[in-house]
Amino acid sequence: MTIDSWSRKRYLILEPPTEEDNCPDQERLLRSLRPEFHQVILELPVLRKMSALCQEACWQVTASLSWDGYRWHLVELEKGDTTQRHYGLCADLGSTTLALELIHMDTGEVLYQTSGLNRQTAYGEDILTRIFYCKDHPERLEELRRETLESFQALFDRAEEETGISISRDCLNLVVSGNTTMTHFLYGLDPFPVFAAPYAVRTLAPQVYRGEELGFPLKGHVYSYPSKANYLGGDILSGMIATGIPFGEELCVFLDIGTNGELVIGNQEFLISGAGAAGPALEGGVVKTGMRAEPGAVDRVELREGQFHLHVLGEQEPRGICGSGIVDLIAQLFLEGWLDMRGKLQEGSTPLICPREEQELAVEYGPGLFFYQSDIDEFLKTKAAANTMVEYLLRQLGLQLSDIQRFYVAGAFGTHISKEAGVTVGLYPDIPRDQLILPGNTSLDGARQMLLHREYRERVEEILDKMEYVQFGAVEDFLQIMVAATAIPHTEYQRYPSVMEQLAKRGRPLE
Amino acid sequence: MTIDSWSRKRYLILEPPTEEDNCPDQERLLRSLRPEFHQVILELPVLRKMSALCQEACWQVTASLSWDGYRWHLVELEKGDTTQRHYGLCADLGSTTLALELIHMDTGEVLYQTSGLNRQTAYGEDILTRIFYCKDHPERLEELRRETLESFQALFDRAEEETGISISRDCLNLVVSGNTTMTHFLYGLDPFPVFAAPYAVRTLAPQVYRGEELGFPLKGHVYSYPSKANYLGGDILSGMIATGIPFGEELCVFLDIGTNGELVIGNQEFLISGAGAAGPALEGGVVKTGMRAEPGAVDRVELREGQFHLHVLGEQEPRGICGSGIVDLIAQLFLEGWLDMRGKLQEGSTPLICPREEQELAVEYGPGLFFYQSDIDEFLKTKAAANTMVEYLLRQLGLQLSDIQRFYVAGAFGTHISKEAGVTVGLYPDIPRDQLILPGNTSLDGARQMLLHREYRERVEEILDKMEYVQFGAVEDFLQIMVAATAIPHTEYQRYPSVMEQLAKRGRPLE
Repeated sequence: MTIDSWSRKRYLILEPPTEEDNCPDQERLLRSLRPEFHQVILELPVLRKMSALCQEACWQVTASLSWDGYRWHLVELEKGDTTQRHYGLCADLGSTTLALELIHMDTGEVLYQTSGLNRQTAYGEDILTRIFYCKDHPERLEELRRETLESFQALFDRAEEETGISISRDCLNLVVSGNTTMTHFLYGLDPFPVFAAPYAVRTLAPQVYRGEELGFPLKGHVYSYPSKANYLGGDILSGMIATGIPFGEELCVFLDIGTNGELVIGNQEFLISGAGAAGPALEGGVVKTGMRAEPGAVDRVELREGQFHLHVLGEQEPRGICGSGIVDLIAQLFLEGWLDMRGKLQEGSTPLICPREEQELAVEYGPGLFFYQSDIDEFLKTKAAANTMVEYLLRQLGLQLSDIQRFYVAGAFGTHISKEAGVTVGLYPDIPRDQLILPGNTSLDGARQMLLHREYRERVEEILDKMEYVQFGAVEDFLQIMVAATAIPHTEYQRYPSVMEQLAKRGRPLE
Repeated sequence: MTIDSWSRKRYLILEPPTEEDNCPDQERLLRSLRPEFHQVILELPVLRKMSALCQEACWQVTASLSWDGYRWHLVELEKGDTTQRHYGLCADLGSTTLALELIHMDTGEVLYQTSGLNRQTAYGEDILTRIFYCKDHPERLEELRRETLESFQALFDRAEEETGISISRDCLNLVVSGNTTMTHFLYGLDPFPVFAAPYAVRTLAPQVYRGEELGFPLKGHVYSYPSKANYLGGDILSGMIATGIPFGEELCVFLDIGTNGELVIGNQEFLISGAGAAGPALEGGVVKTGMRAEPGAVDRVELREGQFHLHVLGEQEPRGICGSGIVDLIAQLFLEGWLDMRGKLQEGSTPLICPREEQELAVEYGPGLFFYQSDIDEFLKTKAAANTMVEYLLRQLGLQLSDIQRFYVAGAFGTHISKEAGVTVGLYPDIPRDQLILPGNTSLDGARQMLLHREYRERVEEILDKMEYVQFGAVEDFLQIMVAATAIPHTEYQRYPSVMEQLAKRGRPLE
């Protein structure tokens, strides 16, 4: 697909004014751009510097243009040919992590990728703490807005240091995708209504503003992906662009599970979406020995002949277990028969399972590392929630899992969990593995796609128009479906033939 | 003509969010404006204040909108109904005088009119001094820009004091008309090329910018009339809108004489324009006892039975003579036979004419007040220049004065000179007096019209497209025609039957 980005740089060799052609400098400049860019908006600072600069540069100048969604703005003029220095930024503004890419706008190449902590986390690990901190305190809201900007600035600084590219000089535009709360903080809007009935938020779709207005050191414009609803944010819309689900014939499921779960089912014909609380178990931060995917985290677990074999990030001694390790561990425990279908640890099946603090059962998966029954329960609630969202929406549509041609599990999370373990615990459906797609950070991918293809802006509007939204918290029979989904892999285990096969192989058929 | 101005205020009674209608505040606001204003740009400060303000105001708010030439911007939101406070500004930015009007945007009524010195004059009475002061000194250019803004601010302050209307709160938009140099200073652009070949100025048509960008305390946008050429400025284009010449069937001449003379001839079929140096004689500042039209200035002169009868502004003792006095004086001298057709004072015709300093003849038109032969020569050059411009363009068009249906003499100047005296000295053509129109400050009138009718912006573009421009300095046979026009009223005196009649009445027929 041809690049048609939010910015352009054009090297212009202008004719100097003569008696025969004494057209004004402004017109001399704009007429050279008009065939390609039509009615260009000439930013006042450029108007003011234009003439002296053109003379100094012998009328050989480079114009930088930025698209505001409707028209092109001439935002910078430089001496000589600087078209090679044409960059842009895209970002996934997560509530914990900010991921940034620096893009070469002519080639679309990712020149640098980095991520860092969203500095809002200093005001609360979870979003609600931050929201309550700001409520009725505009000055605190401004603090969080600044922290958000400084999170960006920290990554900008790193990118400049690593690449030698000047962000403020050579990066024109930024595309951000984030959930509704993150977008509120970025624009300096109180996000309280995101979580409070009647959920009438400040905006689901901020307009395009100039970088400087928003506090970014960028001469061009900033586009933020719009949200569909308070719980279905711009990161999901960005995922739609990244995966292309709304433009294809194939019937797809798009699932993003974190503290909240977001789901879209559809194709070019229709799109239905939903969101609800999932639970933080998958993020590794909640279980007793859980941790983020950092050095020292167990990220792979195998159980062979009654012995655990662990893979540890950073080749260190294990200190705890991260999301992908948890899924592996539960899958292995279940296949080994140390965990029953209801998700209960089987005392006596192995000496590694025994009561620990307050008589709660735990399995010692590594030396001094314990995974508790309550951790498992927490995980199963989360996976049941995710599972149930899919189930619920499919039922609404009169569809079955077998009708689904692609099943996307988005998020950095999805890329680390093994497909087999995910299926075994019933987090993923038991479908052909090539239909189960773990595309990584689709929010960031969609932001990059948008940056490079401004026509996607209208596509996103079409997607929003077409998409229907269900808020699962408000759905009555949701809990009932969810109970069935709490079992491993599922109460209706017939749906998981590959898991049944594995159990049979190990001599432990479910019947 | 219905008012369709650059700004709107709308009182909105919005429904508060409910479970049934929890659409975001931004959308709640914009959807109420969409039927009338389509895709409104929501300024970031308004987005940020919107929600708290709406809640405090029980969702009864007033939106202020400003037109940028393409789209409407929501630039302010206020509690309750403030639609009554809806004002705008228009200004004629002359090189000496800044004239300002405060307009009620719903009625078009002029609520206050004032004028004051253009503070650039501190840097030189004439424009060239100011231009050379700034040349190659960007910091001096910035000084002049600030002086220009302060000239506005001084009038804003006066207007606020006199009317009690808050400019920064309740005036949204400003329309300015001025010549090319004034526009350059206002936008912070070096006007040197206005007077230096090849006359490739910075811009003839500044784009629409936000008041704040330009340094005005206004929330809306600022439109400046475009110029046709370096010497044919926005004030003339504004005059076109004020008089309606380009839209009517009647063939018109539009003449603006000051230090420079500008001329347009045409109607809805065609427009031809020209400009050239005229001479400052008409502005009263150059002749030895000349002065501005201030208290103490002689503004009317009659000569009855060999005696001067003077009218003095401010009912004071006469201190000097202003433009309208000069025209009266010369007309009376000529009719009395004290001045011949070639414009030479006739020594011996009256004791009031005698040699003065350096043996130069002068007429004592008041006690101790002398008007010199060189003053008369200066005036005649100016009137000849004006006359010749008209003559030249008419010849180009194959037209004669008798083809002209309306002859406009624009400028504050025009309103003070008596028509008869103007005809007598040959400054105006000898046409039926009701076809000779002295419309006053058409630059200011056109600015007001533009403020109230945004569709005129396109009309102005059409006028610019249609208008042809001749620079008289560059015309070869110009001087030749001009010599003939230096006579009183003209070498071809047959063109001035009414003057011939008066002379005959006084027993002094030209033949």
